[in-house]
Amino acid sequence: MIALARDLFPLNRSLTGEGVRATLRRIAREIPLDVIEVPTGTRVFDWEIPREWSLRQAYIVTPDGRRIADAAVHNLHVMGYSGPVRARMTLGELRPHLHGDPARPTVIPYRTSYYADNWGFCLPQAEIDTLADGQYEVVIDANLAPGSMTLGEIFVPGETDAETLFYTHTCHPSLANDNLSGMAVCVELARWLRARRNRFSYRLVFGPGTIGSLAWLAMRRDVWPRIRHGLVVVLAGNRAPLTYKATRTGQADIDRIARAYIANEEPGGTVIPFSAWGYDERQFGSPGFALPVGRLTRSAEEGYPEYHSSADDLSILDADALSGSLRACQTIVAALESNAHYRNTSPYGEPQLGRRGIYRSIGGPASGNLQKAMLWVLSLSDGTEDLAGIYARSGLPFADIERAVGLLTGAGLLELPADVSA
Amino acid sequence: MIALARDLFPLNRSLTGEGVRATLRRIAREIPLDVIEVPTGTRVFDWEIPREWSLRQAYIVTPDGRRIADAAVHNLHVMGYSGPVRARMTLGELRPHLHGDPARPTVIPYRTSYYADNWGFCLPQAEIDTLADGQYEVVIDANLAPGSMTLGEIFVPGETDAETLFYTHTCHPSLANDNLSGMAVCVELARWLRARRNRFSYRLVFGPGTIGSLAWLAMRRDVWPRIRHGLVVVLAGNRAPLTYKATRTGQADIDRIARAYIANEEPGGTVIPFSAWGYDERQFGSPGFALPVGRLTRSAEEGYPEYHSSADDLSILDADALSGSLRACQTIVAALESNAHYRNTSPYGEPQLGRRGIYRSIGGPASGNLQKAMLWVLSLSDGTEDLAGIYARSGLPFADIERAVGLLTGAGLLELPADVSA
Amino acid sequence: MIALARDLFPLNRSLTGEGVRATLRRIAREIPLDVIEVPTGTRVFDWEIPREWSLRQAYIVTPDGRRIADAAVHNLHVMGYSGPVRARMTLGELRPHLHGDPARPTVIPYRTSYYADNWGFCLPQAEIDTLADGQYEVVIDANLAPGSMTLGEIFVPGETDAETLFYTHTCHPSLANDNLSGMAVCVELARWLRARRNRFSYRLVFGPGTIGSLAWLAMRRDVWPRIRHGLVVVLAGNRAPLTYKATRTGQADIDRIARAYIANEEPGGTVIPFSAWGYDERQFGSPGFALPVGRLTRSAEEGYPEYHSSADDLSILDADALSGSLRACQTIVAALESNAHYRNTSPYGEPQLGRRGIYRSIGGPASGNLQKAMLWVLSLSDGTEDLAGIYARSGLPFADIERAVGLLTGAGLLELPADVSA
Repeated sequence: MIALARDLFPLNRSLTGEGVRATLRRIAREIPLDVIEVPTGTRVFDWEIPREWSLRQAYIVTPDGRRIADAAVHNLHVMGYSGPVRARMTLGELRPHLHGDPARPTVIPYRTSYYADNWGFCLPQAEIDTLADGQYEVVIDANLAPGSMTLGEIFVPGETDAETLFYTHTCHPSLANDNLSGMAVCVELARWLRARRNRFSYRLVFGPGTIGSLAWLAMRRDVWPRIRHGLVVVLAGNRAPLTYKATRTGQADIDRIARAYIANEEPGGTVIPFSAWGYDERQFGSPGFALPVGRLTRSAEEGYPEYHSSADDLSILDADALSGSLRACQTIVAALESNAHYRNTSPYGEPQLGRRGIYRSIGGPASGNLQKAMLWVLSLSDGTEDLAGIYARSGLPFADIERAVGLLTGAGLLELPADVSA
Repeated sequence: MIALARDLFPLNRSLTGEGVRATLRRIAREIPLDVIEVPTGTRVFDWEIPREWSLRQAYIVTPDGRRIADAAVHNLHVMGYSGPVRARMTLGELRPHLHGDPARPTVIPYRTSYYADNWGFCLPQAEIDTLADGQYEVVIDANLAPGSMTLGEIFVPGETDAETLFYTHTCHPSLANDNLSGMAVCVELARWLRARRNRFSYRLVFGPGTIGSLAWLAMRRDVWPRIRHGLVVVLAGNRAPLTYKATRTGQADIDRIARAYIANEEPGGTVIPFSAWGYDERQFGSPGFALPVGRLTRSAEEGYPEYHSSADDLSILDADALSGSLRACQTIVAALESNAHYRNTSPYGEPQLGRRGIYRSIGGPASGNLQKAMLWVLSLSDGTEDLAGIYARSGLPFADIERAVGLLTGAGLLELPADVSA
Repeated sequence: MIALARDLFPLNRSLTGEGVRATLRRIAREIPLDVIEVPTGTRVFDWEIPREWSLRQAYIVTPDGRRIADAAVHNLHVMGYSGPVRARMTLGELRPHLHGDPARPTVIPYRTSYYADNWGFCLPQAEIDTLADGQYEVVIDANLAPGSMTLGEIFVPGETDAETLFYTHTCHPSLANDNLSGMAVCVELARWLRARRNRFSYRLVFGPGTIGSLAWLAMRRDVWPRIRHGLVVVLAGNRAPLTYKATRTGQADIDRIARAYIANEEPGGTVIPFSAWGYDERQFGSPGFALPVGRLTRSAEEGYPEYHSSADDLSILDADALSGSLRACQTIVAALESNAHYRNTSPYGEPQLGRRGIYRSIGGPASGNLQKAMLWVLSLSDGTEDLAGIYARSGLPFADIERAVGLLTGAGLLELPADVSA
């Protein structure tokens, strides 16, 4: 995952343009991918696909001839969606177009101006503060022209056409945790899903934030009613415990399962309620769609010091954090896949597991998790509680629940009622 | 508010009598007020209005000729509703009638004996402990005679005859936080309500504790079914965060709104569940009425060191605390007034606020509360959630929610379904 | 209770056998007891009653002639249900049969092998570690033969045939907190119940863990539908606050009452949710029975350092802890017995208690619990809340609630609707 992130880091992504296309081509080398182009001017609900932005070069020349804020040096130097400029101006005229972050004076902040005609440069505040009066040469060789917005989609068919959706945004240039980590995890998750036999079909979507998810929803109206569960996976690679943000209702299966994952398997992890801002979960969860889509991040939004700045580079990506995020997604998928209301066929007291060879034989301390998982599954499988509920109440890793279900089903102690469609 | 409290402090209030009448006359100089006199002997539910108490003078002369416990020096020296006494007695005979507070030996405690024939004096325990044996002269020149109990009521008519009730007690003499603060806040609240156009009609009642609210309920049987919300406001002026005590069910609109106020706008504030004792909220919340009346105090009941003693004087009233209590009442009123189930007219994803000029244009950190409030209102206005619920879930100040509703309604993004009566 | 525990301590209890019978005979000297014998081979649901185990002697002779692990010295030295052995073997051959506890090297751990053919000795790990190579003589003079499993039952008839069940296990030899404390508390509880007039009938059952409760349930099929409430009482004698483990649903009357007891009357106590392991509550709560049986312990399962070892001896039993456990059971019984939906006959406001002589007369601080209890009972007795709910919401000791109900009923302020069967 880190290797993929390394390749994607230098590409100059934005809402639209060649940076995103190059990103999707690189991903397609890992796993087959459908590319969706949505033309400029297409209406997507309350929005319209903007013109495509191409940047050839951008820089400022100081009165003493130094070239600064050069987009060739760092993608973040030019404000996203800046229009073309070629002018000489005083520092006073230039200043409103210079963006620094006084609270983090040594980093280049990340700024965009997607939906207003504007232009600007981003620099360390410390550098802005040293600029001397005089005439500055300002060059933004950019183009805003009809084109299209580009999304990628990996579809993994399952036994049913009920779908589980994963979404990760692709519109941030040269930011590592936000957004390369999400792409890397989704690519590995897709690879894992393709190697499994799944009950649900899966769709993993790579697109820009906000307008990307709306465009995808507008293109895929037939898919909406089939979406049973969904997860936005972003900011998944830095060293911080996972945070799950609940869906709009907080009561969906994915909420119950992700909440159990955080409680049982992610020390220090947190669950936060749905909120009306954040990433694309707020589009999926808007009142018209009201889809059960949660969100998995490590530090959420502005919760890590490198957020939306040049400090969010490859050095803050952690291999264990990425693996942990992938494992969380896999566990949530496994729990969604196997979730059902089982029935204990020997419900009068605890069955004698020892006689069936699935219980430790010498009474002593520290029953293992698998033993406990068997007892939990037997105890709660009265037809009213599903595995997601057992997972939550047991406090055990889902893998133990799943293994217990296998052992008990094998021993004839557990069955899935024929009419249950989960 | 502090000036009003200063004027009211010396008046010798009790359940009945001239002290209360003088108090209401002073309030009437601020704002028009209806005075209700309920005659002695009137049955109010399980109670009967007591005789009216008048005190001309009360003191003790010690064996060495000093006058102590003189009601002319401090109203609290004589136990409320003491009957007339003029006698000489030994210290042993006098002692059962002397009330001090061993835990706070330097203050005069506040004691009453409304419903039992009795008399007594209250003194600092330290002073009691120095009394020498000998003959004491005891004088209570008081009168318990047929008369009436006096209440004040401010009625502020609104667009509907559904009512919101405020109640504050008036029966404590020379205690500042308990009860002048409540009167001062209610007077200012009434002034503010009269200057607004309100959906609800408002009634602000000034009466004695317990029997006062019962007498008011007995007089106003026609009003009961119109009371939609209510709040007892008392002990609202000392330096401590606000405490909201929930109504009997804990599920009323005022509970949801006051709970959100405490959580979102009162750092350090607390919410306590309904309990069967406290102030007049327990009468309004008794099973026969079961009215949705909560209570707002700063330190509740016995929760501040000066409680029910001469230390509860004007020095513990804090202008900011009084203003904060008033602001809480105003915010609760504003939220009750505007509460409704709005509907987002553009529910498929987030509408593009920028194009309508109601969104910041350059992406960067720290979206303001107003931006967040717009997103919350849009996200939750699917017809099932009201503004009180949005207030609670958003964690934002209500003023931002209200402003967001105004902006979104102005932009045509929000509407109030015609058939909704809130 | 400590005297009874002292007598029972040396008896060599197990699932079956003379140790249990001697235990029940000793209990029968305190209180009449029905003895139930369930023959070897009887099917009880998924289980079968095992052969009866008798142990005459068991020990090891070391190469240098010392007798160690002698069951005559401590019952725990021989693993429960060890089969007969008489052999000489090397330390290497013996070692798999020696059980120590490396985490607690100085204690004899408690081990059993009920349902697998096996034998073994338990010793302090420190002693195991000193054993030298050489030939060991191993003697277990034990017998596993057809016989029966023995349970004791005390039945206390009440006014109705609805039943409340208490269960305590009897299968642990020479362990004091686990299980003599439970037996001692249940004996005293039975004595107290027999001296009262009760609405419910009571059954206190003394039997082995797991198979004992299942055998009892198999023998008493007619009783199942009559069980309204139940409590497993075990590990009730060491110095630690009480822990209540909820029933399967967590919503039974006994859950509401025991939760209130812990919150109101057991400082430091805790309530834990139902779990699928523990003691016999998991049999009563299995899906086929789903009986409302909670559990009362002090430190639960492995939660105290002496658990399942020779350190769990009489020295850790505390007279106050035993009394406290008994008092908890008595309070829970009292609350179950008197639980009902009362109705306040004077529901419009607080009735004037003073006039009826059941209220303090001089207003002052610190209303006693009884005063508060009267207000709570009056306030919540609108026909929808029962005493269990009032107990929970009031935060008061149940004795005060009960006394308040008596006073208010006596004053005609409270009545029990004729048609309520609680």
